Amino acid sequence: MRKFLLLTTALGLFTFSSRLLSQPAQTARYEGLARQIVKEALGSNSAYEMLRDLCTTTGHRFSGSSGAAKGVEWARQKMEELEFDRVWLEPVMVPRWVRGPVEEAFILYPSGKKEQLNITALGGSVGTPKEGLTAEVVEVRSFEELHKVGSKAKGKIIFFNRPMDRSLFNTFEAYGGAVNQRGAGAIEAAKAGGVAALVRSMTTRLNDSPHTGGMGYVDTIPEVPGAAVSTLGAERLSEVLAEGKPVRLHMRFSTQTLPDVESANVLGELRGTEMPGEVIVIGGHLDSWDKGQGAHDDGSGCVQAIEALRLLKKFGLKPKRTIRAVMFMNEENGLRGGIAYAEKERPGERHIAAIESDMGGFTPHGFGIGDSTAHAKLLRWAPVFSFFAADRFQLGGGGADISPLARQGVPLMNLLVDTHRYFDYHHTDNDRIEAVNERELALGAAAMAIFSYIIAEEGL
Amino acid sequence: MRKFLLLTTALGLFTFSSRLLSQPAQTARYEGLARQIVKEALGSNSAYEMLRDLCTTTGHRFSGSSGAAKGVEWARQKMEELEFDRVWLEPVMVPRWVRGPVEEAFILYPSGKKEQLNITALGGSVGTPKEGLTAEVVEVRSFEELHKVGSKAKGKIIFFNRPMDRSLFNTFEAYGGAVNQRGAGAIEAAKAGGVAALVRSMTTRLNDSPHTGGMGYVDTIPEVPGAAVSTLGAERLSEVLAEGKPVRLHMRFSTQTLPDVESANVLGELRGTEMPGEVIVIGGHLDSWDKGQGAHDDGSGCVQAIEALRLLKKFGLKPKRTIRAVMFMNEENGLRGGIAYAEKERPGERHIAAIESDMGGFTPHGFGIGDSTAHAKLLRWAPVFSFFAADRFQLGGGGADISPLARQGVPLMNLLVDTHRYFDYHHTDNDRIEAVNERELALGAAAMAIFSYIIAEEGL
Repeated sequence: MRKFLLLTTALGLFTFSSRLLSQPAQTARYEGLARQIVKEALGSNSAYEMLRDLCTTTGHRFSGSSGAAKGVEWARQKMEELEFDRVWLEPVMVPRWVRGPVEEAFILYPSGKKEQLNITALGGSVGTPKEGLTAEVVEVRSFEELHKVGSKAKGKIIFFNRPMDRSLFNTFEAYGGAVNQRGAGAIEAAKAGGVAALVRSMTTRLNDSPHTGGMGYVDTIPEVPGAAVSTLGAERLSEVLAEGKPVRLHMRFSTQTLPDVESANVLGELRGTEMPGEVIVIGGHLDSWDKGQGAHDDGSGCVQAIEALRLLKKFGLKPKRTIRAVMFMNEENGLRGGIAYAEKERPGERHIAAIESDMGGFTPHGFGIGDSTAHAKLLRWAPVFSFFAADRFQLGGGGADISPLARQGVPLMNLLVDTHRYFDYHHTDNDRIEAVNERELALGAAAMAIFSYIIAEEGL
Repeated sequence: MRKFLLLTTALGLFTFSSRLLSQPAQTARYEGLARQIVKEALGSNSAYEMLRDLCTTTGHRFSGSSGAAKGVEWARQKMEELEFDRVWLEPVMVPRWVRGPVEEAFILYPSGKKEQLNITALGGSVGTPKEGLTAEVVEVRSFEELHKVGSKAKGKIIFFNRPMDRSLFNTFEAYGGAVNQRGAGAIEAAKAGGVAALVRSMTTRLNDSPHTGGMGYVDTIPEVPGAAVSTLGAERLSEVLAEGKPVRLHMRFSTQTLPDVESANVLGELRGTEMPGEVIVIGGHLDSWDKGQGAHDDGSGCVQAIEALRLLKKFGLKPKRTIRAVMFMNEENGLRGGIAYAEKERPGERHIAAIESDMGGFTPHGFGIGDSTAHAKLLRWAPVFSFFAADRFQLGGGGADISPLARQGVPLMNLLVDTHRYFDYHHTDNDRIEAVNERELALGAAAMAIFSYIIAEEGL
């Protein structure tokens, strides 16, 4: 990338604008700052210390839970301690779905033997009958395959067992290729006459930890329970089914949907010195699933946003435009925080970019930039990020929390990271602080700081 | 990088050679192969399955141990199963140093209270007297500081407590800045009149796991024991010393240096179809320290070399030049395998490149290339590696095992990986298969396969 830059500036004297001619000096200045920021981020270990504190203070932070409420307070206090220019909450009503104490499934053999499978209810699911439900299992790999099963699906537990494609380089692409089973499995199961959906966990790893996640219902279709089974459990069940005899499964879990609860997005900002009304949002979501500690998903994105502002402040960098850290509430099961943030009237303000970190606290590789004009403009700063290998600026990007800002034409962006370990932890009991590497997390925070600062200085 | 390429080929029609003009087509061909190879590496999970098998078969593989002997046999059998064109052993005599069953250290308080510190003998160290040694502790951060201590160092345990600089982006650079304390601490301690060296473990993490590693003696200086203390232990000892009162420490461990043992390098190759006498070595070291399972260091490099050949064979790729997987013995405490490999007469053969993987089984970022001519020639193929983010081709590279080949003018290279987690595990009980991510390991193997194949096809 550097070589490309040298070439174009050498050849382009007569065609390029004066702004571009001064770019090598600006690039060098930003790189100098970036080196200081990376050094401080790694040396201080502040992002990791914050994340450890958050995770151990709150446990999980599922929307409407006491952990989420503690998380809101934690984030506000942390940013107040750090003396950001302004720190505040924006209240938002969130759904309150509650998992019951028992989640169990057994293969019932004709001999009377029972074999346990590790399952967990999917978020938003109704519970099974109190005594559980027992039915034969039909295994399919797709909705199309389920349609072909026809009337034989009636009264059955529909077992969706299409794995994430481990051969894909990008694990999010593999996730995208399998997750419709989780999101719409219960709907499709009910449409086919099934009594429940059991979905293979969304991970490329084989282990015994089930992965929860969101699922939906539609008004016109009966609501049947949906659960995830661990990948080892899925393999085992498939093996038993392969013997060709009918296989009966017993599943039992309770869930409740309670009235909405008031919660909040948490915001803190460094006010722009020249154009305070032009705002760059950086952030992630404060809520998590009700598993583990939401360390990667998305405690990491939250502490990186706070750390990014801390880093800028530490070096006395006062951005021309406002950089605002937003910790959104309820990304996982409602997106209420993201919607409320975008819908709120903000007189005198214009968002010029929104940058989300919600792919886990892993080694940053660069940024995804959803807007082609913004991508073209920002590409010139990629060399600033080369020394710490975070210079891949790809066209295409965004994030769930910031997606409602798209309607206002705000360019959406996100931190790109190494994705290989994300689905080892995603939505499971294992998404804990121990699964986060402190250096990887810190580098992501540094990347967010530098990227948002350049946009705040240069505009878009 | 792609853009640079397009520009130069567009502009360079009259100045560049015809070979370069045909490069886009060649690049596209290699990228097509690379995509298949990456898909197979990830999809099959073969490298990880091999590494799990190696680690559980051998435990650690310290030179001269039964684990090392099992490792030699495992590697030979594995490559024979895979039906490489030729598989063989090259015997080499290796040193045999043996750690004793007890390794202990206590801070002795005037009250009679004892506080345990976690230590481990450094590789090659003499033992303490049988009953242990007890002495006051002097803490220093450098050899220079020790020199200034002067006669007060006499009779003391010299505690070398300079941490690896966590603020550096490259952890190997941080290691390089601290490891002289481990390598030469016992020599410097003895020169100063000290009775032992206690060295802060080589990691940026704070935990209670001591890291072993190599240390040396010189003939003219008395041999005093050397041990590593965990970083938490080092912090604690430093804290107690900071109170300003004399601190007495008791250390006890036994070690033995036994006669050399016969072991072997393990080799397997795909014979070149056109220039079989031109050899590209790919590999890592089969031995490990006597801790954990040597999963990252360097079981990963070994299985990646085997997997690279398997991947090429799987797709029927018959390289023009020979690609040889070499699993070197005794990198950790003698380099006998690397030296023996380089010194062996090989009539009719010429090594054109040697590529080591010995930075752990982490996400590959590209290659370090020690020879500037080779770097310049190989840079044009970097775009082949872009789709899986392994296209950083840096000038500067090599590896301990292949370093003796430098005298023959062989260009030395190595797989570059994400370095952030390496020193969490390096030379400790924690370097086990569980610490390796299967996808990261597989991608490294794929990178080695593609890179070595391109060199075998294109020459250097």
